[in-house]
Amino acid sequence: MSATVSPLAPKKYPKMPAVDGVRIATAEAGIKYRDRTDLLAMVFDAGTAAAGVFTRSKCPSAPVDFCRQNLAGGKARMLVVNSGNANAFTGKKGRETTRMTADAAARAVGGATGEVFLASTGVIGEPLDAGRFSHLLAGMAKEAAPGRWLDAARAIMTTDTYPKVATATVRLGDAEVTINGIAKGAGMIAPDMATMLSFIATDAPIAAPALQALLAGGVGSTFNAVTVDSDTSTSDTLMLFATGAAAKRGAPAIADAADPRLGQFKRALNRVLKNLALQVVRDGEGARKQVEVTVTGAKSARSAKRIALSIANSPLVKTAVAGEDANWGRVVMAVGKAGEPADRDRLAIWFGDNRLAVDGERDSSYSEAETSAYMKRDEIAIRVDLGLGRGKATVWTCDLTKEYVAINGDYRS
Amino acid sequence: MSATVSPLAPKKYPKMPAVDGVRIATAEAGIKYRDRTDLLAMVFDAGTAAAGVFTRSKCPSAPVDFCRQNLAGGKARMLVVNSGNANAFTGKKGRETTRMTADAAARAVGGATGEVFLASTGVIGEPLDAGRFSHLLAGMAKEAAPGRWLDAARAIMTTDTYPKVATATVRLGDAEVTINGIAKGAGMIAPDMATMLSFIATDAPIAAPALQALLAGGVGSTFNAVTVDSDTSTSDTLMLFATGAAAKRGAPAIADAADPRLGQFKRALNRVLKNLALQVVRDGEGARKQVEVTVTGAKSARSAKRIALSIANSPLVKTAVAGEDANWGRVVMAVGKAGEPADRDRLAIWFGDNRLAVDGERDSSYSEAETSAYMKRDEIAIRVDLGLGRGKATVWTCDLTKEYVAINGDYRS
Repeated sequence: MSATVSPLAPKKYPKMPAVDGVRIATAEAGIKYRDRTDLLAMVFDAGTAAAGVFTRSKCPSAPVDFCRQNLAGGKARMLVVNSGNANAFTGKKGRETTRMTADAAARAVGGATGEVFLASTGVIGEPLDAGRFSHLLAGMAKEAAPGRWLDAARAIMTTDTYPKVATATVRLGDAEVTINGIAKGAGMIAPDMATMLSFIATDAPIAAPALQALLAGGVGSTFNAVTVDSDTSTSDTLMLFATGAAAKRGAPAIADAADPRLGQFKRALNRVLKNLALQVVRDGEGARKQVEVTVTGAKSARSAKRIALSIANSPLVKTAVAGEDANWGRVVMAVGKAGEPADRDRLAIWFGDNRLAVDGERDSSYSEAETSAYMKRDEIAIRVDLGLGRGKATVWTCDLTKEYVAINGDYRS
Repeated sequence: MSATVSPLAPKKYPKMPAVDGVRIATAEAGIKYRDRTDLLAMVFDAGTAAAGVFTRSKCPSAPVDFCRQNLAGGKARMLVVNSGNANAFTGKKGRETTRMTADAAARAVGGATGEVFLASTGVIGEPLDAGRFSHLLAGMAKEAAPGRWLDAARAIMTTDTYPKVATATVRLGDAEVTINGIAKGAGMIAPDMATMLSFIATDAPIAAPALQALLAGGVGSTFNAVTVDSDTSTSDTLMLFATGAAAKRGAPAIADAADPRLGQFKRALNRVLKNLALQVVRDGEGARKQVEVTVTGAKSARSAKRIALSIANSPLVKTAVAGEDANWGRVVMAVGKAGEPADRDRLAIWFGDNRLAVDGERDSSYSEAETSAYMKRDEIAIRVDLGLGRGKATVWTCDLTKEYVAINGDYRS
């Protein structure tokens, strides 16, 4: 946790309702941090369905391996998350830690180890001793209570400067269902996913395969469309749990992600995903501005997204935004380096509503004064039209400031 | 030009001999900078062969387009380079500027416009008015003189903190031939090539197709193996000119790059290329340390290079080096995100001779004190062995400091 809260932090937090079938406990295990919580246990009623998407790193953490394996069963009874140590690149010891933690969690809730999910975030390469916290899980399972979502978000923070929560309540059939989510992440954030942990739970009765399809469908334009520093973590984990408790109140059991009754739910889930993903960007290490990059007119949506990410990951674009300069020449550079189809002489570039370039050259009618005023805002939108096709994509990032370098380079000095 | 010279600048410059058949002039055209030269003319004897490699940007500058077109002829009489304005993304006006400049240059040397080569470096998107400097070319062609290589290097600087020159003299047949080169570049530096301009000339009599093959063969492990910030320029230009003047002193005419008599020449050319490429890295914006990244044991050389670049471009690795921290966990991350074959449990990582990780976990025998002492050096070598195959590659970068952000973000404030 940083002493200075991001200027882009939410002004206030939503009231987080309980999600039927979910209970939460946090603890100070002292894994690395002092005087703060660093351990989260989320306990689910029996029969809770689980879905997840994970980092595409070729060097995933031990908990990521563990979760991938358990996801085949599709059932969850307990989620255990620690901050301060990522249990990544820890070899055999790392696997032992996940096994010991899962055994303790399973005993705590009277479930199977295959119904336990784990996530760890923090330093890479330090062995994580399960003995430091696994003995706490039985007590946490006992005292876990609904509604502690903000506490949950706090316990999983690392370099985050604020806890990240989001909630939505929508109708499913004749019943109201709730979707609550938390996230953490501030650096090592890039598609696909970043040192980002996010856990979402709903009381909607949705079967695991449908839940997985909903999550996979929602992630492309949300968590997989944000980048802070182009560095993809070993530990990225996004999970969605459905307790099904709303069935008692008349919510229909959903077996298929294409079920038309899911319309509202899908939109609300995607809103929660996007809200949390943007909170991560807005807490990007050293961030002072949120940057939305939209590419239109590309040959395909895939091509548009690659170009958008090339812009969003460019250190020169990001430092220009930090300097409040509408340096569209660097945007041209980033389009050019993406390796995707582009025709220089058809390019148009906007910062907000200010068109700075058109038909491959500077827009002679643009107002420098208006653009300069625009660049002082804390939310900047960059748009590029390629003039080639109908492909489009939007991604989000933050500016690159000296504070980013300080956070990631000065910690030893 | 920056007020503060990079701490990695060369302690002294080599004495640059003349290259027979090459004459140099520089001038203060006042294109953007004041009280410094910003225009370079290099005049070649008739019959000089030309070779070049250029940016792979999809949005190349007007001079890059112009050079690519003229390269088909393989002959050069004059090279004109300006700093302060890149003539990139300048549409039709940009093409007119190249034509007007080339016309004036051709008249100045009594050659054809197809024998003129142009390069521009500086701001993108500002129209470059050829009228500001094309009238100077006739006078420059007249007063051009041999041996002014350091002046030439100075005239093409932008954010460079020092001029970059290199030279080699080797035997070709029974004659001595000289290879001289200059380069500029400090930011927007990434494979393939960066806002990097480099011009090399030799008096060796080598035909254009052979010259092109030599240049293309040498660039992969030199200029295309350096990155400062992963941002590829619109303007990268590397050209090699061979006047053939050494033929008068008995050097054999070379028509084929595979000619065995080229052995010494090839090695010397590659040394000059590597020397200049490393000077660019060592002048990377804000650089305090040079970082050499070597990947061995990859599935292929191509895979090794991609992983090496993933490490060299990672902001988290680069900020850790700036902070003098041997943060090998971030190296694991960068290996994992490269998307290339890697087996976490076979990875080994060294900083210098200090092995920090082996078989997928921390090397329990590594000395933190020795590693910390090593990280204080100004040249850091990171080595990763993947344990999969025989592919290997080395690339070079610099650290990422607050000064980089200041140079690229504070220029307006």
